[in-house]
Amino acid sequence: MKAEIVSIGTELLLGEITDTNAAYLASELPTLGIDLYYISQVGDNMDRLYEVFHRGWSRSDILLCTGGLGPTEDDLTRETIAKLTGEKMAIVSEMEKELRAFFGRRNFPMPENNLKQAMLIPSAKALPNPVGTAPGWFVEKGGKILVAMPGPPRELRHMWENQVRPRLLQRAKAGILVRRTLKVTGISEGAIDELCGELLRSTNPTIGVYAKPDGIHVRLGAKASDEAAARALIYPAEVKLRERFGQYLWGADEETMPSVVGKMLQERRLTLATMESCTGGLLANTITDVPGSSAYYKGGLVTYSTDAKVANGVDPEVIQTHGVISAETAVEMAKAARKALKADIAIGITGVAGPAEQEGKAVGTVYIGIDHSRGSQTFAGKYPGTRLDIKNRAATNAIFQLRKTLLDLQGT
Amino acid sequence: MKAEIVSIGTELLLGEITDTNAAYLASELPTLGIDLYYISQVGDNMDRLYEVFHRGWSRSDILLCTGGLGPTEDDLTRETIAKLTGEKMAIVSEMEKELRAFFGRRNFPMPENNLKQAMLIPSAKALPNPVGTAPGWFVEKGGKILVAMPGPPRELRHMWENQVRPRLLQRAKAGILVRRTLKVTGISEGAIDELCGELLRSTNPTIGVYAKPDGIHVRLGAKASDEAAARALIYPAEVKLRERFGQYLWGADEETMPSVVGKMLQERRLTLATMESCTGGLLANTITDVPGSSAYYKGGLVTYSTDAKVANGVDPEVIQTHGVISAETAVEMAKAARKALKADIAIGITGVAGPAEQEGKAVGTVYIGIDHSRGSQTFAGKYPGTRLDIKNRAATNAIFQLRKTLLDLQGT
Repeated sequence: MKAEIVSIGTELLLGEITDTNAAYLASELPTLGIDLYYISQVGDNMDRLYEVFHRGWSRSDILLCTGGLGPTEDDLTRETIAKLTGEKMAIVSEMEKELRAFFGRRNFPMPENNLKQAMLIPSAKALPNPVGTAPGWFVEKGGKILVAMPGPPRELRHMWENQVRPRLLQRAKAGILVRRTLKVTGISEGAIDELCGELLRSTNPTIGVYAKPDGIHVRLGAKASDEAAARALIYPAEVKLRERFGQYLWGADEETMPSVVGKMLQERRLTLATMESCTGGLLANTITDVPGSSAYYKGGLVTYSTDAKVANGVDPEVIQTHGVISAETAVEMAKAARKALKADIAIGITGVAGPAEQEGKAVGTVYIGIDHSRGSQTFAGKYPGTRLDIKNRAATNAIFQLRKTLLDLQGT
Repeated sequence: MKAEIVSIGTELLLGEITDTNAAYLASELPTLGIDLYYISQVGDNMDRLYEVFHRGWSRSDILLCTGGLGPTEDDLTRETIAKLTGEKMAIVSEMEKELRAFFGRRNFPMPENNLKQAMLIPSAKALPNPVGTAPGWFVEKGGKILVAMPGPPRELRHMWENQVRPRLLQRAKAGILVRRTLKVTGISEGAIDELCGELLRSTNPTIGVYAKPDGIHVRLGAKASDEAAARALIYPAEVKLRERFGQYLWGADEETMPSVVGKMLQERRLTLATMESCTGGLLANTITDVPGSSAYYKGGLVTYSTDAKVANGVDPEVIQTHGVISAETAVEMAKAARKALKADIAIGITGVAGPAEQEGKAVGTVYIGIDHSRGSQTFAGKYPGTRLDIKNRAATNAIFQLRKTLLDLQGT
């Protein structure tokens, strides 16, 4: 089955919002065995909307639309579908009742405009929207499907998962796709290609290698008539790859580097502390984005001034001798954080995020220190980009180095 | 002039990346007086790419394309443009020299595939790309324009700003649009509508009111033959609105709440410190995203455990009596941070980011305390959403409350 996505709304064409709905739906379709050939964005204009719908309806089997289901005159999705199918819209009393109940629960009188949202054409079924006012439309006619869903991403995702995806799954004939992503780091894309070897030529599962900010992602995808059969195709390839990647493999699917490192700390009953300067709290924020991080993260110090570093236990002589931007100060910051927060392991970061250089050190110079009961390590980095890029890369690398240190400690 | 955007790449249709390029270009076009009617995404497939190019080339005056300019067989933008114009591609020796020099500077042998990137058709001019290997194409033929730009956002933006925008500005006939955004907070959208009054019906400048995460944005847009004339149209309306919004107005255009509050602190020669629990470093990170924040931000403490709070000067009796999640502890944290970091003003945040409730307090409960030389204030919040939503809203609100406190202090 061939699908096509149409995102509707003038705000998309003015660049006021980015169309994240299309990317979300696009990532879902392969799991249903549905091919996607076109995505388009069009404004709130009946002629242009009709042109896009008409073309999609003639060249594709499934048309997925988002937006244009609101109550105002600008919202033209329903009217355009009616024109496309040559059918007439009418108010459905059941839908009107639900809509009035929605406003009733909020103690709001329903504006009469909203009645548009209680209308259907004969070949459309209403898709309930418990998180908003606009129901979706699921139209089946002449062997083709057109689905109209609301534009707000929260409403769209809810309706897709609960109403649309299950319906399309029933109709999926070409089988479904299951995906599995293995995440590796510390090795080049070329070396990963070599390790994948003959598996790269496999057609089911397929294997793709992608460079990402957190390392290299190796994506396996298998097509089969159902999920269990697809998983059975992936399993032996995954086992081989895991063996070959060894220690370079750090996670799979939704796992992030901070969540994986958090799990390592928790399993070993180790606690963590941080003292950061140029990353200004981003490292702490990254660590605490992980649910349950309070089990191992004691806390952090953002010592943006030299005063604050010294007040929190950094030896002023180290700063005097080596400078604030130095490997020695980074490791001294880690030591001070470990002591002040009574943690088993600590990270210190100092560097120049910009816009101006500091102590004659160029923007992008970063030192990371890690201190633990058996010693300490330091790492130096030089990152390109803006202030925010440098903060991001420094915080990401600090977590990577922490994982490396934890692995080394395990090995000893 | 009517424009159309085509984003090229199979990864867009697999939902592996979100098309931010289209939104960026879409937001730029109105400033050139160019209307945008369609955006489409298409995969790396010659037939479908030709279909989209052909339609765009016949219905629009300007076709802006991104992606498909790499060196591999998948990259088909150049070939498709050659087919569309009926012209032949040939290697341009000047471009080949530059390309080889690019690889030379990186001590990399140039793969022969990359020679594709040194090709042009007669009606195309090469657009230099100093931040990547793929030059752009600027094609003019039969009164129409087709621009091909690279897909990586950094390369695209550089080429747009330095090469494409200036060329299109020369050809802009319908005049240009200048925009100005006024940012307000602490007042409802309805009340803002009333304050705008008769100005909402103005057609040049136009005025639009938009709800955003950091308050309400009032956007003015004026069309004129040049920038100075457009600014002259905006000016009197802006003066009126500034007067009417008064203290609710906090910034304009690119200003963010943290940058505005940073400016206030710097002007008054006040220093800031933070102690945060549930936001886990996000508040410090938000403050230090502002370039130059080291001038007023002394530093912060991320006290994720009660131990860490007490070790950093929070009175254990306050925690004992009122609980960790309380207004009293929030203000006590602010006091402790102000003292420990020798700052003039400090913020404390404590709350429940989830996933589980704490001390019988529901997920989303947040207390903010602000302490300064003339006293202290507390604020309570209850935020919906995920762990990350709650962290974001709490940090955003803390900066809002800091601004309010600074305004109140000025008034006394």
